Amino acid sequence: MTIVAHSIAEVRSAVIQWRAEGKSIGLVPTMGFLHEGHQSLIDQAVCDCDCVVVSVFVNPTQFGPGEDLESYPRDFDHDLALCQAAGAALVFHPDAEELYYPNRSTIIHMADLSEELCGKSRPIHFDGVCLIVAKLFNIVTPDRAYFGQKDAQQLLIIKRMVRDLNFPLEIVGCPIIRESDGLAKSSRNTYLSESERAAAVVLSQAIAQGHKLADSGERDPRAITAAMRTTIEREPLANIEYVEIVSQEHIKPLDGLIDQPILCAIAVRIGTTRLIDNFFFDPNA
Amino acid sequence: MTIVAHSIAEVRSAVIQWRAEGKSIGLVPTMGFLHEGHQSLIDQAVCDCDCVVVSVFVNPTQFGPGEDLESYPRDFDHDLALCQAAGAALVFHPDAEELYYPNRSTIIHMADLSEELCGKSRPIHFDGVCLIVAKLFNIVTPDRAYFGQKDAQQLLIIKRMVRDLNFPLEIVGCPIIRESDGLAKSSRNTYLSESERAAAVVLSQAIAQGHKLADSGERDPRAITAAMRTTIEREPLANIEYVEIVSQEHIKPLDGLIDQPILCAIAVRIGTTRLIDNFFFDPNA
Repeated sequence: MTIVAHSIAEVRSAVIQWRAEGKSIGLVPTMGFLHEGHQSLIDQAVCDCDCVVVSVFVNPTQFGPGEDLESYPRDFDHDLALCQAAGAALVFHPDAEELYYPNRSTIIHMADLSEELCGKSRPIHFDGVCLIVAKLFNIVTPDRAYFGQKDAQQLLIIKRMVRDLNFPLEIVGCPIIRESDGLAKSSRNTYLSESERAAAVVLSQAIAQGHKLADSGERDPRAITAAMRTTIEREPLANIEYVEIVSQEHIKPLDGLIDQPILCAIAVRIGTTRLIDNFFFDPNA
Repeated sequence: MTIVAHSIAEVRSAVIQWRAEGKSIGLVPTMGFLHEGHQSLIDQAVCDCDCVVVSVFVNPTQFGPGEDLESYPRDFDHDLALCQAAGAALVFHPDAEELYYPNRSTIIHMADLSEELCGKSRPIHFDGVCLIVAKLFNIVTPDRAYFGQKDAQQLLIIKRMVRDLNFPLEIVGCPIIRESDGLAKSSRNTYLSESERAAAVVLSQAIAQGHKLADSGERDPRAITAAMRTTIEREPLANIEYVEIVSQEHIKPLDGLIDQPILCAIAVRIGTTRLIDNFFFDPNA
């Protein structure tokens, strides 16, 4: 039986009970409208941990002005059913008033890692992500927390925050889950019209192409991103926001050749819908 | 027997053991050179908690350029003896490399509350305090953490951070401990020459005067601070940095009369030594 908690106190009370029983706790933070990508995180958590908490909360502090906070898709009944079927012990579904005081003052900011890629067009996004994730860590006190590689910059930033603030937990990054044609699963895919949905496959095609180039020995980041850009630009409905190769350590462009673990990440607008995709690559692996 | 831990791993290992035994944990974060003020925090913690951790760490991230990081007084043998005598279970005495990675990126910033008082002359100070305190919370995972009211702005900021980030612990504020003539105990008092030490009593005199005015019904903050200024200015060795009355909620000057809980705080240089003192007052109490 999955517990539905709307308040912090309800979560803490369940956690205290589990801890008293010696159980391990996994956390899957989500914004809801769950799809197979989230499902894979929950499955992994259920596999690793005795009790799994899924948070379903469209976090206002990570949306900038003019972004899709209001229109972000929501379907709690579906989310709850998915969590129940997957074996989650508790679904935390608070409203914004439960989590944020009007006079909140605390800001968590990630220098360095939040400046490029999505941080460029979404300047407060990662501050908001760090804030809500830190809060959830302190509310749920999980042993492990699960994040998808789909949001690769977010994954690297959360890992850095956990290291820098010594959160006593492990971050588990999980692979991107894709549609049969390759499109990375995303709640925002529902924004796409039929023709846009067909066009959106260009993201994963470019990612596959870039990954293959790196795998086959190409070490010039500009050669890889140029080839990927050419692929994307062939699609008339696609507008590139960025196609970048950055170091995993600093999320900054490389000075020269690929000589360290990198993230290759892209953001592309298909019509008005902004989609992202990426791959990690380690030349020394 | 007090454990001396230099590494995070040693602390975590002790904490896991204590938790398995169902023991409660108290944390007293200090920069060492312990005096009766710190002692009173440790005593309170020992009274409230099964196991008390005292951290002794001169935290570089809370010192600005030109401040007294290098010259800050240190005496670990004395600190350890005091902690042992007071019944601390563990003294955490790491070096800076144990706590800070060269590529650390995470910043905790307190908007609003850190802008006035000490925040004006020490712009990065409270970011550094929040960072080290958040780290210690995550390393020690205390049930309660103890802070002196001597650093009143710090106390209010830490309380706000704990609330905003949902740290699962209680902040216990402890009263200012004073020398027999009233001077608030501080590790920095050792910087004072004999004549400066005599002059330093002017801080507690002004605080007592301001507190008495508020207690006796004065509600005009400027009347109170003006009287306090006059007292301090009578001392030739004293140079006022600030004498302020601010709201406890925002640490900002009041618009009009004292109609909410306030902090009256002063910072005064005696020669080259910067000393602080304060009182809290609630007109509705």
